[in-house]
Amino acid sequence: MNFNEELANKVTEIEEVIGEYLPKEEGNQKVVLEAMNYSVLAGGKRLRPMLMMEAFNMYGGQGEVVKPFMAALEMIHTYSLVHDDLPAMDNDEYRRGRKTTHVVYGEAMAILAGDGLLNYAFETAVKAFQIRPADQAVEKAFSILAKKAGAFGMIGGQCADILAEVRQEKLTLEKLLFIHEKKTAALIQSALTIGAVLAGANEKQVATMEQIGYNIGVAFQIQDDILDVTGDINKLGKPIGSDEKNNKATYVTLVGLEEAKKEQKRLSEEAIRLLKEEHAQEFFIELVQSLITRES
Amino acid sequence: MNFNEELANKVTEIEEVIGEYLPKEEGNQKVVLEAMNYSVLAGGKRLRPMLMMEAFNMYGGQGEVVKPFMAALEMIHTYSLVHDDLPAMDNDEYRRGRKTTHVVYGEAMAILAGDGLLNYAFETAVKAFQIRPADQAVEKAFSILAKKAGAFGMIGGQCADILAEVRQEKLTLEKLLFIHEKKTAALIQSALTIGAVLAGANEKQVATMEQIGYNIGVAFQIQDDILDVTGDINKLGKPIGSDEKNNKATYVTLVGLEEAKKEQKRLSEEAIRLLKEEHAQEFFIELVQSLITRES
Repeated sequence: MNFNEELANKVTEIEEVIGEYLPKEEGNQKVVLEAMNYSVLAGGKRLRPMLMMEAFNMYGGQGEVVKPFMAALEMIHTYSLVHDDLPAMDNDEYRRGRKTTHVVYGEAMAILAGDGLLNYAFETAVKAFQIRPADQAVEKAFSILAKKAGAFGMIGGQCADILAEVRQEKLTLEKLLFIHEKKTAALIQSALTIGAVLAGANEKQVATMEQIGYNIGVAFQIQDDILDVTGDINKLGKPIGSDEKNNKATYVTLVGLEEAKKEQKRLSEEAIRLLKEEHAQEFFIELVQSLITRES
Repeated sequence: MNFNEELANKVTEIEEVIGEYLPKEEGNQKVVLEAMNYSVLAGGKRLRPMLMMEAFNMYGGQGEVVKPFMAALEMIHTYSLVHDDLPAMDNDEYRRGRKTTHVVYGEAMAILAGDGLLNYAFETAVKAFQIRPADQAVEKAFSILAKKAGAFGMIGGQCADILAEVRQEKLTLEKLLFIHEKKTAALIQSALTIGAVLAGANEKQVATMEQIGYNIGVAFQIQDDILDVTGDINKLGKPIGSDEKNNKATYVTLVGLEEAKKEQKRLSEEAIRLLKEEHAQEFFIELVQSLITRES
């Protein structure tokens, strides 16, 4: 089985897990439940639950305990997109070729659906206590899930990003890296460290996963900035040079293309080296490689 | 000490607990943290954490474990107000005489601040695991917190309420009770049952708290509907008869004033009777009485 076949199989497997944990659309609140499920089922790479599963398996995790956390993390990722797309935020009408939640269900219901998904993520993760009650690893995983998604994690990055845009702030490199780390890397770190913790990995191993998550997230974003300059419009599906045109500070505009490529390479190579040291399976390494060397 | 003095003392005590758990306003995400704290510190009766503390004490609860849950529940209540006040929802510019969060911080930041508070509620509740690790009562409390706030609890009530308004639906009594139960009673039930569970109450006692929470929440809302017809405009601070003018279905318009008063009385008396059977302290009983017999 080649990488792409294996990837497709794993996506199917993960979507089954997510499907198991989605709420039934019933009762007087049926509409908000429909809007929640519509958002989650809009597709996507299912990258975060996949990384969680890979980390869990790599450290010899056994049983079902990781499943509610996989579904929960995807719900958190999804709610953040639903709220990001709102008119008061990015005002996007389409995502992955489908109408966004507020376009289909109205703005009020999209706000509620986002709230509902964030809340349901914790309702879902709590089910791990039924699988392994009174287990401190599950409690630790819960704590990571909450922290990485919150104001000192993803939401913190969104805040800095929005302010930079609203205030037309010229970003410093420090602030840009903060945004990349919090907005993108935080949930990837959440995926990798929760997988490791639930599998019983030790502190040093969890710290390594945290480092790898940082590198993947930031390298992914720098690659995004690089592609905006060097990308192939046909592969990318969006105009190149849009960051420069929008006068947007990116890693490339701040340090130059060569330096950006060098840093992206350093982060990527370190992530791969660390994964190999942890004896990651071939698929896990290829998955990470495909993320950070993507051309679209 | 009379009831009002004791109430004022308890509010001060609870606000100290909440203050301990609020995030520090620092870092590149300082603004969203400020908006979160602004919303929580806007005042209010602190009713939910107070009911939680009373239930915890009534069942002989010991130690600090209830505190993070008290703060968490108030954060959940607050985020729901922040999002409710948004232009796409109720579009309120003032709450308790202060400008609402989106008026002060802008709409995008108010959405994020609400998300941040909901998420921070779970980050805060998780701290109870540091106080009592590997403890199934804490896990159960966590599960209640998440469920009562979510799409099958408070958010479910908000969904039904919004739809009735948007679609100009004529509410049935069943749907009106659903909205009252989910939108108002759910978090009161959350307060009372979490307090009981953390104190080690048995299943029957927890079920009694659930029943009392239902009665308080629904009686409170029926009283609201009654006051809209019979209230003293000077005490109420808002015009009477506004529900009828807005063609809004209420408990009174659906069953008539006399029947509404009768049902309100029945729910209230049952709540008080159950509390007395559980040997609630005098303050707890007076607190509940003041809630359901209020004239403003």
